[in-house]
Amino acid sequence: MKILVINSGSSSIKFQLLDMSSEQVLASGLVERIGEPMGTVKCTMRPGTEKQSALKRDLPVADHQTGMLLAVELLTDKAQGVVGSRADIGAIGHRVVHGGERFHQPTVIDSAVLAAIRDTVPLAPLHNPANLDGIEVALRLFPGVLQVAVFDTAFHQSIPPRAYLYALPYDWYEHHRIRRYGFHGTSHKYVAGECARLMGKPLARCNLITVHLGNGCSMTAIENGRSIDTTLGMTPLEGLVMGTRSGDIDPAIHVFLHRNLGLDIEEIDRLLNKESGLKGICGYNDMRDIHSAVAAGDRRAALALDVQTYRNRKYIGAFMAVLGRVDGLVFTAGIGENDDQVRSRSVQGLECFGIAIDPERNQRRLNEPRLISTDTSAVQVWVIPTNEELAIARETVALVNPQEPMKET
Amino acid sequence: MKILVINSGSSSIKFQLLDMSSEQVLASGLVERIGEPMGTVKCTMRPGTEKQSALKRDLPVADHQTGMLLAVELLTDKAQGVVGSRADIGAIGHRVVHGGERFHQPTVIDSAVLAAIRDTVPLAPLHNPANLDGIEVALRLFPGVLQVAVFDTAFHQSIPPRAYLYALPYDWYEHHRIRRYGFHGTSHKYVAGECARLMGKPLARCNLITVHLGNGCSMTAIENGRSIDTTLGMTPLEGLVMGTRSGDIDPAIHVFLHRNLGLDIEEIDRLLNKESGLKGICGYNDMRDIHSAVAAGDRRAALALDVQTYRNRKYIGAFMAVLGRVDGLVFTAGIGENDDQVRSRSVQGLECFGIAIDPERNQRRLNEPRLISTDTSAVQVWVIPTNEELAIARETVALVNPQEPMKET
Repeated sequence: MKILVINSGSSSIKFQLLDMSSEQVLASGLVERIGEPMGTVKCTMRPGTEKQSALKRDLPVADHQTGMLLAVELLTDKAQGVVGSRADIGAIGHRVVHGGERFHQPTVIDSAVLAAIRDTVPLAPLHNPANLDGIEVALRLFPGVLQVAVFDTAFHQSIPPRAYLYALPYDWYEHHRIRRYGFHGTSHKYVAGECARLMGKPLARCNLITVHLGNGCSMTAIENGRSIDTTLGMTPLEGLVMGTRSGDIDPAIHVFLHRNLGLDIEEIDRLLNKESGLKGICGYNDMRDIHSAVAAGDRRAALALDVQTYRNRKYIGAFMAVLGRVDGLVFTAGIGENDDQVRSRSVQGLECFGIAIDPERNQRRLNEPRLISTDTSAVQVWVIPTNEELAIARETVALVNPQEPMKET
Repeated sequence: MKILVINSGSSSIKFQLLDMSSEQVLASGLVERIGEPMGTVKCTMRPGTEKQSALKRDLPVADHQTGMLLAVELLTDKAQGVVGSRADIGAIGHRVVHGGERFHQPTVIDSAVLAAIRDTVPLAPLHNPANLDGIEVALRLFPGVLQVAVFDTAFHQSIPPRAYLYALPYDWYEHHRIRRYGFHGTSHKYVAGECARLMGKPLARCNLITVHLGNGCSMTAIENGRSIDTTLGMTPLEGLVMGTRSGDIDPAIHVFLHRNLGLDIEEIDRLLNKESGLKGICGYNDMRDIHSAVAAGDRRAALALDVQTYRNRKYIGAFMAVLGRVDGLVFTAGIGENDDQVRSRSVQGLECFGIAIDPERNQRRLNEPRLISTDTSAVQVWVIPTNEELAIARETVALVNPQEPMKET
């Protein structure tokens, strides 16, 4: 079965078509600058094979419906397309950022589900409306095709109250659903599953710490295969130091900024999300730029690296305390997969807790899962490339064939 | 030498007179409701001795100067007083909440120091002005007497940048001094010193985690006797769950409250400081009320206890990761000294990290330092009553006799 995976943003649509008999990517594309005077649609066909080719068109893309139609045109292109027609697409999986407390797992989309996703818009005012645009267009263009919403928050719905509740007036939770939700759930769940498979142990008996370090960063404590705590909170701002997001700060800094710098709350929120994190400390939000700057003697770049990896280390310790026993520590996503320095600094000094990285294994650069801990490390440390599109496609297939027993999540 | 210790609040003055030859408390008193139509001055003389007596007067206390004069009247009372005149007071130690980045240790007060404390008012707009009131009055009433400022932040000035810097625009640090300062420093330093003494090991070779759980709560990682990280931040709002303060939250919750509940930033700050924490979750901010409520089946009181102790556990883990080796874990302050349930829940499941409490030792109620870990626990766990007044008096004496070598802080 061929599955189309859609990640719809406010002015973009990322899409991928996968053949799930082989889990091969047939095509991977992007529609950009929707609603602007000039947009782009591009798609790589049969990536990684001998027959790889690319298509790209620059043209105005008025709205998401136009964008999705253009994507379908490329996928069904007479010369280079990978499917004959829309009818060859068996099901569609949509990435949805926020599922609130309603969605504990991937869910077949119907009108009630659409309404429930709409209800969570206040919790994710930037992301969910864009995700909804993508879903609504796809429902119109692919009538009768089963469509599934895969939520970034769903994997974390197993987190218990002691970890999801903030120490805030309780009616804010009861009436406004202010609590920790966590994000990157599809990625954490995917690499946890891969790690269990690679360790040869059922996921349901694995205690893991999964560390997703990309533009956004988060860490999850997984007990017997289930998320029991995570660093991102009600929004994707809390926890670790990210590219442009602050992560944890003293929550009284807002009023200080208001009183002393005259900033209002919307501007503060923008600055915490867009001008903070690594970028706030040193001006660079890309870890590769930071390494170059450090090599050139940039003191603040070194500081940014130090602050980020120190925060990682604190949370690894916090989650070890929460889990008691840890079988595996997994690094994933852009930085987690490719940056040996960030990895080694994040676990520095943790040998006494049974976490020991082998420097040579850590420095090896491979685009596949690999063990980087020493043979005597009590905790196995893994680098596992994440693959959210494949994860969404797998979740979608599982709902197309509900007769098959669901894998325990 | 007799030392007067003063903790001046916005409408109160706490004072204690100590004889430092024996470290005995001669008198301990409180002036309350300064500036209100009716105030109170009370003082216990020779507490804990056969000659203990109390004095109390209800009368209007117009300002801090009046309050301080009334306190001196009680201390020099003909019948019950503990000193003949003001001249018997050898030196005065003042508690000052915020010393910014300027003050790394207790400091003899002169006009330059006064000005520097005034400079930190934006960082502690509620506390430092009240502390300054007390200092200015005492300078007028005790001319020629050496007066020392002991800062709540000073012990934490050894924290390195990786732990004190937030991932925020760097110029907020450079130009507005937004960073982690930490508080309760006098208490953390005092119990760390006591713990080292009790363990029979020089403080400068001790790695400790000190857990101060009172109305305010904080935890400090101490490496070779020096603070290297702490949970309170730029203000006393960050970190652990406190009586009415939230501790850590997602920093995007502010904008959510603004957009969805119409709250402004000052009101949000008030709610985070006064209506959150344990009180926010369950309505009670006193742990004794919470235990009674839990016993009566109150689900939210149980939740408050669960959230607080779980957060404690996470930070113990974080600080273990930071320290690598931990010699001692110390509980102190109201809850830390008296609440065996909070202590045992805060270290639950940490046996695998060498922290094991002996239930019987933990439940014993004593008003003196005691070891509560098992004989085989790798980390010694102590309960040590804090004594900020004695600590301030000791710091003050050390500056009266500067010829004596300063103890390494």
